[in-house]
Amino acid sequence: MGVHGRSEPPEVLVDGRPDRSIGVEDRGLHYGDGLFETIAFRGGRPCLWQAHLDRLRAGAVRLGIPPPSDCLLREEVRRLLEGQDAGTLKLMLTRGIGPRGYRPPALAQPTRILLRYPIAPPTRGWSEPAVAVTLCRVRMGANPALAGLKHLNRLEQVMARSEWDDPAIAEGLLCDARGRLVGGTMTNLFLVRDGRLRTPRLDEAGVAGTVRARVLHHARALGMALYEEHLYPRDLEHADGAFLTNALIGCQPIGRVDGLALDAGAVPSDLLACVQRDVFEPEPDW
Amino acid sequence: MGVHGRSEPPEVLVDGRPDRSIGVEDRGLHYGDGLFETIAFRGGRPCLWQAHLDRLRAGAVRLGIPPPSDCLLREEVRRLLEGQDAGTLKLMLTRGIGPRGYRPPALAQPTRILLRYPIAPPTRGWSEPAVAVTLCRVRMGANPALAGLKHLNRLEQVMARSEWDDPAIAEGLLCDARGRLVGGTMTNLFLVRDGRLRTPRLDEAGVAGTVRARVLHHARALGMALYEEHLYPRDLEHADGAFLTNALIGCQPIGRVDGLALDAGAVPSDLLACVQRDVFEPEPDW
Repeated sequence: MGVHGRSEPPEVLVDGRPDRSIGVEDRGLHYGDGLFETIAFRGGRPCLWQAHLDRLRAGAVRLGIPPPSDCLLREEVRRLLEGQDAGTLKLMLTRGIGPRGYRPPALAQPTRILLRYPIAPPTRGWSEPAVAVTLCRVRMGANPALAGLKHLNRLEQVMARSEWDDPAIAEGLLCDARGRLVGGTMTNLFLVRDGRLRTPRLDEAGVAGTVRARVLHHARALGMALYEEHLYPRDLEHADGAFLTNALIGCQPIGRVDGLALDAGAVPSDLLACVQRDVFEPEPDW
Repeated sequence: MGVHGRSEPPEVLVDGRPDRSIGVEDRGLHYGDGLFETIAFRGGRPCLWQAHLDRLRAGAVRLGIPPPSDCLLREEVRRLLEGQDAGTLKLMLTRGIGPRGYRPPALAQPTRILLRYPIAPPTRGWSEPAVAVTLCRVRMGANPALAGLKHLNRLEQVMARSEWDDPAIAEGLLCDARGRLVGGTMTNLFLVRDGRLRTPRLDEAGVAGTVRARVLHHARALGMALYEEHLYPRDLEHADGAFLTNALIGCQPIGRVDGLALDAGAVPSDLLACVQRDVFEPEPDW
């Protein structure tokens, strides 16, 4: 969400060393053979640290990339955040350098990349209490083998994000080839109707968001009915309200999807408050 | 096709300068936001140079990445191939460094990466006159917006290539989510039946191979009937023969798909000869 084109360059650790470059043979570059996490930090501490770490590890297991130890990552993040208050941390894990060809090396030596970005003022679209979104034309490919993973193959999102230029539009919603809603380019989507919470299934496309999991947790705790199901753009018309989630915004109600107005007040405020507190409260003993 | 894990490191030019690293903020790494070409060179000259250049340019237009001038690329390739006889050239073009977020910078400064790999003895599977292939379990996502492009989002191919370890198996065939054949992990696929040539359509997935285009050209010239159509694994059972194509192997008949034997002799030898000559004859005035 940095103001476009004016962001300061990030501070970077590559395999624990201050560096601004990576090896040109890295499989992260050649194939997008890796994973990433985008993590907010507040008060010098990463938010939802354990959730991000768990997802990274689960993704690494699915891709067969040996994950770094929690201790090592924690130590490197501590170093990178020293003396810093708030901002965004991006953590990338690639399968590292390998010979030419898709075949993963038998003994991969993964590359870990930590980038610390300064906190940026929200772009115009995201500074609204209820954001305006657009439905993108680009469709997402369905692939159960990759669904849910926060991997480095993100061209679909790049193409979707190229579809609009209006700074008043915060996010674009994406459907798969069958016309089913997957989520936003960088967010998960929730619909509210009659006090029930509905969100797209993630077994064929999409990212299993860390905040999405917190929403499901808190909604359950508040006794709300939850449905992970196939949703279509027409379901937006029948929704009372809708909201988006990710690790940097937490939860944000949607006020408008193209010409369709949605009632931001329909999103239960107790749920929003619980999730927002949970997400941005840095973990005390991370 | 390098012998696994023993390949020499490539010689590299990044934006025309000898380098072994790229900026850690490059969108090629973060999103796979770019394209590549894999080019054979023989007698110090790149094979199918114009076809590779044309595909790169067409892909850049589709992704909205400003392509480098032909002259600049040619000059850099000349420098990299100076004094070299035969080997493999990999050309990558990314959208370059950008601020955080999927949105492409308004004025992208693309990164061009040229890697020169030594010629490698073919791996065991590919040294057979008719290769053995396997049908992969991983499915390819369908996405018309990306279909045909040789982009940097290649995790599906990486996962497919991880499915087998048997050095006697040269290649894996992939289907999309509807069970339709797309091609090999790094090759295009052709089936032959009753003198007719059939190859998967590429409007939802797959790469528009440079050699595939030459096969279609020569088959037409030889008066063969051609069908770009939906093909299924069961079509292999009814085929007389089948073959694979890419810029490094040219054309290679398939001898076996898992338990199914195919007749390598069913692939028209005049077609094979034409294509092979065309592909590996370096362009005189490239």
